[in-house]
Amino acid sequence: DSGAFAQVRRMLNRGLPAQDVAHLLESSPPKERDLLWNLIEPEFQGEVLQHLVDDIQAIYLKRMKPEEFLTATEGLETDDIADLLQQLPDTLIQEVLVSMDTQDRHRVESVLSYPEDTAGGLMNTDTITVRPDITLDVVMRYLRRHESLPDSTDSVLVVSRGDHFIGMLPIIRLLVSDPNITVREVMDTDTIVIPADMPDNEVANLFEKFDLISAPVVDDQGTLLGRITIDDVVDVIREDADHSLMSMAGLDEDEDTFSPILLTARRRAVWLGINLLTAFLASAVIGLFDATIEKVVALAVLMPIVASMGGIAGSQTLTVVIRGMALGHISSSNTPWLLNREFIVGLINGVVWALVVAGVAILWFDDVKLGAIIGTAIIINLLIAVLAGAALPLMLKWMKIDPALAGSVLLTTVTDVIGFLAFLGLATAFYL
Amino acid sequence: DSGAFAQVRRMLNRGLPAQDVAHLLESSPPKERDLLWNLIEPEFQGEVLQHLVDDIQAIYLKRMKPEEFLTATEGLETDDIADLLQQLPDTLIQEVLVSMDTQDRHRVESVLSYPEDTAGGLMNTDTITVRPDITLDVVMRYLRRHESLPDSTDSVLVVSRGDHFIGMLPIIRLLVSDPNITVREVMDTDTIVIPADMPDNEVANLFEKFDLISAPVVDDQGTLLGRITIDDVVDVIREDADHSLMSMAGLDEDEDTFSPILLTARRRAVWLGINLLTAFLASAVIGLFDATIEKVVALAVLMPIVASMGGIAGSQTLTVVIRGMALGHISSSNTPWLLNREFIVGLINGVVWALVVAGVAILWFDDVKLGAIIGTAIIINLLIAVLAGAALPLMLKWMKIDPALAGSVLLTTVTDVIGFLAFLGLATAFYL
Repeated sequence: DSGAFAQVRRMLNRGLPAQDVAHLLESSPPKERDLLWNLIEPEFQGEVLQHLVDDIQAIYLKRMKPEEFLTATEGLETDDIADLLQQLPDTLIQEVLVSMDTQDRHRVESVLSYPEDTAGGLMNTDTITVRPDITLDVVMRYLRRHESLPDSTDSVLVVSRGDHFIGMLPIIRLLVSDPNITVREVMDTDTIVIPADMPDNEVANLFEKFDLISAPVVDDQGTLLGRITIDDVVDVIREDADHSLMSMAGLDEDEDTFSPILLTARRRAVWLGINLLTAFLASAVIGLFDATIEKVVALAVLMPIVASMGGIAGSQTLTVVIRGMALGHISSSNTPWLLNREFIVGLINGVVWALVVAGVAILWFDDVKLGAIIGTAIIINLLIAVLAGAALPLMLKWMKIDPALAGSVLLTTVTDVIGFLAFLGLATAFYL
Repeated sequence: DSGAFAQVRRMLNRGLPAQDVAHLLESSPPKERDLLWNLIEPEFQGEVLQHLVDDIQAIYLKRMKPEEFLTATEGLETDDIADLLQQLPDTLIQEVLVSMDTQDRHRVESVLSYPEDTAGGLMNTDTITVRPDITLDVVMRYLRRHESLPDSTDSVLVVSRGDHFIGMLPIIRLLVSDPNITVREVMDTDTIVIPADMPDNEVANLFEKFDLISAPVVDDQGTLLGRITIDDVVDVIREDADHSLMSMAGLDEDEDTFSPILLTARRRAVWLGINLLTAFLASAVIGLFDATIEKVVALAVLMPIVASMGGIAGSQTLTVVIRGMALGHISSSNTPWLLNREFIVGLINGVVWALVVAGVAILWFDDVKLGAIIGTAIIINLLIAVLAGAALPLMLKWMKIDPALAGSVLLTTVTDVIGFLAFLGLATAFYL
């Protein structure tokens, strides 16, 4: 049995790649996870930490002393150290920084000086730079002096004497060009250059659009600060996509799948509470018409259909618009077309399903008036639903509120209130 | 005015990168899009096509004759040609293939022989290969004989005489190593090797986990077939994430943001129809209790709260489980822990919000019995909801049905039926 134990320990410490150890931790409930974590050697913990989801990183980082943090993160890339550091309280960040050697500290500080979700926060400072006036042969000899080159080095960056970015020399071009010509003659100068304050999702869009492996990051003056590599961008893409999915259910993309019971209960309770307000509002609307329902109980039987059809139609539009905004498809010039299409689609589907539901209602309750009322209510609610589904995310974005998070609950409020109001209001007018 | 027109035409034909032209088309309503498309020169259309979303690709590909397709796609990479070709009807695919030159045809056919969503369908055949027993100096001279190297070439692939994959030689290692040693001495042999039939989402997980730029694809015998590059994997990651988001609203990830009115209406109608069945089922359940509602109309006022709270709690669990499955976190070994956590979280939030809703109901209708009934119904519905939210995606996956697509509508069915049944059933037992 202690043999099996030793084997697990070996597997966790470089028997498996750090990525697999991180995945194993993420796939383990909290107790098993703690047991596994404690078997990982201090020097290997940083490697594993950088591959963990934020939620779990935070748990283990909080338990570390500054010197333990330094041991764990020795040898990591600057941007990864900065990422981990940002999860610590400010006082601890200072303690860690003063214990670093000067060069490392300067590098980490330069990344830390930019918000985590910008190009500056995403960049690495391990660039290989050359001057434009040397020959390719000199570049080759310069590269050969390195013991190894940083990961994802697909280009050498060309800078002026003042460290101004001038251009890029792709390594595959270096390999096929005449060694006697100068860097200036073969470098690319029309490459994508990323300002340090660009939001990370825009960086991701650029990488995706232009199939980049790495790109230089510069400040306002065009001075080279570092470079961003595709591996970090892939994480941004995954997180952005996760964000839309999780936010629509009031969840956080940094969430641990196996987060502990009390934390999970507390986080979800907030969302349930917000949605309860919506539900109460819907109840209040129904309450206005209790006399009508008492007289025609079929209204109570059918009313969820009106609200539900509106909710579905609206959420389809909401999803299309939120995704369109994320992909950068939607602008003020095409919004009128989009609103118009949604209106007509809402009208078509409103009429189609109104006829179906009205038919069923008439057969079920043998009451033509009831059929006409529910049909009209469905058309009204679907039209309002699709317009709200399209307009809400645009308005929320303009108000700088996250549409994926606030959109679905606001939409439900609209479709419930309008659904019950239209159906029961019409019924009151025609039955009482 | 014809000056402005000429300028647009210039912009569309290499004035802008193909990616930006594609983005412009994707951001345009159908009529404007057709106008723009017709301004693009035939030789540039393939470049633009490959960056378009499937829905729009299909529209323009359908209008092309085989010779137009060949003109448009000349110079594209094999995997991209194969992708476009797969959108054509079978007879046209054959026509195009016979018009290709032999080498191109063999390459495209080898990619086409694998399903689009596997490693084989994703791969490119433009590999640079060397033998293990030559020196690095010979490799360098061999590379220099190329006019240019394929994009994203970060490694030279090492193969045996029979084209069996042996290892990889990273270019950055080639640059820093002694030119006189052999490939065998510096190559990596423990690299990730991808079988041609691996599903594309597993390929994406490997790239993401190990920060790969490119990886070799082999057949059952270990023969090198081609390589997969990160730019194609990034598209897979984006599409997979899009798929979860869009499917939950019954939409398709290949959908065009500006798809035409009738197509949009027809696609959405299907989802509304499916959800209408759920709504009718809920109505039927309410209909069972019409006598009770007639007696206590407050039940009609409050009943949407019970269904809605269950729906929200269930969809949170559903989202967490679907995402956990996509990330590969959930297996049979940790499912019991997850079900247990969801049950306890459901119980805690059930009790908390049951007390709140019961309190409000008692104050509102001055009826303690009503408060007890709605509180109990909420606890029952939340427990069933979280268990269904966790169990449904696992069951659906086991039945090979897409959980993101079928999960939300099945969950709503459960939470509506159980919500109304519990609340109105209890009320009938205690009021009649």
